[in-house]
Amino acid sequence: MTATPVLSASLTAIAGLRCKECGTEYAAQATHVCEMCFGPLEVKYDYAKIKRNVSREKIQSGPHSIWRYKDFLPVESDHPIDVGTGMTPLIKANRLAQHLGLKNLYIKNDAVNMPTLSFKDRVVSVALTRARELGFSTVSCASTGNLANSTAAIAAHAGLDCCVFIPADLEAGKVLGTLIYNPTLMAVNGNYDQVNRLCSEVANTHGWGFVNINLRPYYSEGSKTLAYEVAEQLDWQLPDHVVAPLASGSLFTKIYKGFREFVEVGLVEDKAVRFSGAQAAGCNPIATAFKQGRDFITPVKPDTVAKSLAIGNPADGVYALELARKTNGNIEDVTDAEIIDAMKLLAETEGIFTETAGGTTIATLKKLVEAGKISPDETTVVYITGNGLKTQEAVHGKIGAPLTIEPQLESFEQALKQAQPLDQLGKQPVLA
Amino acid sequence: MTATPVLSASLTAIAGLRCKECGTEYAAQATHVCEMCFGPLEVKYDYAKIKRNVSREKIQSGPHSIWRYKDFLPVESDHPIDVGTGMTPLIKANRLAQHLGLKNLYIKNDAVNMPTLSFKDRVVSVALTRARELGFSTVSCASTGNLANSTAAIAAHAGLDCCVFIPADLEAGKVLGTLIYNPTLMAVNGNYDQVNRLCSEVANTHGWGFVNINLRPYYSEGSKTLAYEVAEQLDWQLPDHVVAPLASGSLFTKIYKGFREFVEVGLVEDKAVRFSGAQAAGCNPIATAFKQGRDFITPVKPDTVAKSLAIGNPADGVYALELARKTNGNIEDVTDAEIIDAMKLLAETEGIFTETAGGTTIATLKKLVEAGKISPDETTVVYITGNGLKTQEAVHGKIGAPLTIEPQLESFEQALKQAQPLDQLGKQPVLA
Repeated sequence: MTATPVLSASLTAIAGLRCKECGTEYAAQATHVCEMCFGPLEVKYDYAKIKRNVSREKIQSGPHSIWRYKDFLPVESDHPIDVGTGMTPLIKANRLAQHLGLKNLYIKNDAVNMPTLSFKDRVVSVALTRARELGFSTVSCASTGNLANSTAAIAAHAGLDCCVFIPADLEAGKVLGTLIYNPTLMAVNGNYDQVNRLCSEVANTHGWGFVNINLRPYYSEGSKTLAYEVAEQLDWQLPDHVVAPLASGSLFTKIYKGFREFVEVGLVEDKAVRFSGAQAAGCNPIATAFKQGRDFITPVKPDTVAKSLAIGNPADGVYALELARKTNGNIEDVTDAEIIDAMKLLAETEGIFTETAGGTTIATLKKLVEAGKISPDETTVVYITGNGLKTQEAVHGKIGAPLTIEPQLESFEQALKQAQPLDQLGKQPVLA
Repeated sequence: MTATPVLSASLTAIAGLRCKECGTEYAAQATHVCEMCFGPLEVKYDYAKIKRNVSREKIQSGPHSIWRYKDFLPVESDHPIDVGTGMTPLIKANRLAQHLGLKNLYIKNDAVNMPTLSFKDRVVSVALTRARELGFSTVSCASTGNLANSTAAIAAHAGLDCCVFIPADLEAGKVLGTLIYNPTLMAVNGNYDQVNRLCSEVANTHGWGFVNINLRPYYSEGSKTLAYEVAEQLDWQLPDHVVAPLASGSLFTKIYKGFREFVEVGLVEDKAVRFSGAQAAGCNPIATAFKQGRDFITPVKPDTVAKSLAIGNPADGVYALELARKTNGNIEDVTDAEIIDAMKLLAETEGIFTETAGGTTIATLKKLVEAGKISPDETTVVYITGNGLKTQEAVHGKIGAPLTIEPQLESFEQALKQAQPLDQLGKQPVLA
């Protein structure tokens, strides 16, 4: 199956690719590393052109998906792959806020993102749209799980062939949630960093579009929509403080880029936003560098329940580090036990079942609040990036069990007496 | 915790409850059975009042959730419980359509409904909003799984105490996806019909709001939003044919009611819509009655992989039966093997991972098309009602396995040779 590139250069604000380190410029093709300095390439835009094109009204009358922000995304086609991705709820988390002693807490809930229930649907929708424009018929990725789900699903919808690479020890839900779409699935005996290295080699030898390797400049731009949506959902204002998980560090820096772009084109007023990052203690290379005051990252061997964050050698780690420092934010890490407790806390107070990555973020939020590093009055937005149904083993056996009864009233009454007293049923003990 | 009822009778079009059988009228309280004839009660509206209140523009400028249709829903509060439920994508399913030989096929995808990934979030959002208005502080339900997830999650968000009843043999994902919200969870040694009977007794002896028993008249109205959204998403037109799953039969009849209401108040033009229903062969009381030309339902003992549809004695079965007949539709049943195959087909062609109930609906669609009972030209909308991550055991071992490799290029190349040839990678064999 060969895709036909649909190009309409005059309609797009893509001005090419540019090296983040030395500034060398490249055409907007499938390439991601600077030939001069080996720095990462990033998409460059003509912001004056974007500014002439966009308005709050135009965005609001667009589709209810990430594609309402198409003017800011690195695609040219008038028909991007749109399966309803994005525009997830920004929930005012009053019960969690009360528990933590905060006043203005919001959850950006990508645990219900479409179609595969993680923020990866954003980056993959952009990457596969661009892959089709560039003529790729086979797409691929190196994944800790969520990206595999998303690439396989959206490739299936778009009719693109798909080959996905994962570490062999992934959670069952993430393996099955990829296989169901019938891609070629390669389970690699190694950690994510080894999978990623292998994929770089494959990208060089096969003509495939790897969403997070040779298509990475386009792919990573999809995360900016997490910033745009929050700004729009806060009635065209920026928050005071953002708390987000750190794996490669890309999402974190792209949220910042999204906010800056909205300021640049005049959609929101300028404002200082603090950026705080969350890592698991079992994979905390960025948090360690932050705490030790270093400006370089020492890779680690991941060992944490938060497998979707288990990147020991984070590609955008130094940029995440810089960002937390320059915005007066923090980077914290939390234990596996704190992660599980935070997953339960979020579910019990807000009805949101997140995966271990979300537990990491909520546990970090809690730790930062307790340390006085987030003030009660700050408008704080916490990014929840994936769904708990994919990492069921993490909480299995740690959330109690049903009370088994016979289908008779007496059996029920007896069980109810053994349960918590009625006036303590449910969530109140958590809030006490 | 006691909720304060917020009543504003003058703002609502609720005119009370009315018996579906004998027409006796009641006040809009927590009651569901007619004292005269034991018929089911339904909410009665003042449609003239609704007609004066609504317009396409008003709806479009409302929230992006079921609450944009609040004028048609049986609640009085200006602040309904809104966690982003509803407005799920209506996907033009071109690849599945091509496979089946259809031209205008749409999937209404409630596998990504918020917050708990099934259509039940619609009915529970309405029921718990009404429960709060009526002063209930503890809410409950009898569930085949999805309803348990939804009631526990939305009760947690709203701060309501919650006690949930399920059959003890449910899928692990549905049990865990309830426990995480920390309700009191009663697992009953029996099938759904036994659970339901027990709950009716508990509803009589405890002052709890059972969403699908004493609050059922309000609860069931939430399903009408599946009709409103499709009509709006089809640019304010009705489809030609609807295919939906049948458990109690309630959803099926409420989609019809929703379409009729939109016609009644002038939001869409009148049109004949055919209604076809889907059941599993292992729990097919309505399909059997349809095929045998009977106008009564003989209860069955369920034995099917589609546990969320396993209601052997469906409360609204006769109404579903009547509806399929009077609209020139059909009711079909499919085997467990056909259900699994259809889950895979939907995933491979459209990137949608549905639970067994959705497999039942797609398998039924296929069967009806093959039998010439759906014409290629009909605009057909298929309702997918839940997510595949909740019923993983159904497909476990039936969707292949990953190719396990070492993190070296040679190992990958070797595995790739053993896999399907590149030009057959992915989805093309399915479409051949």
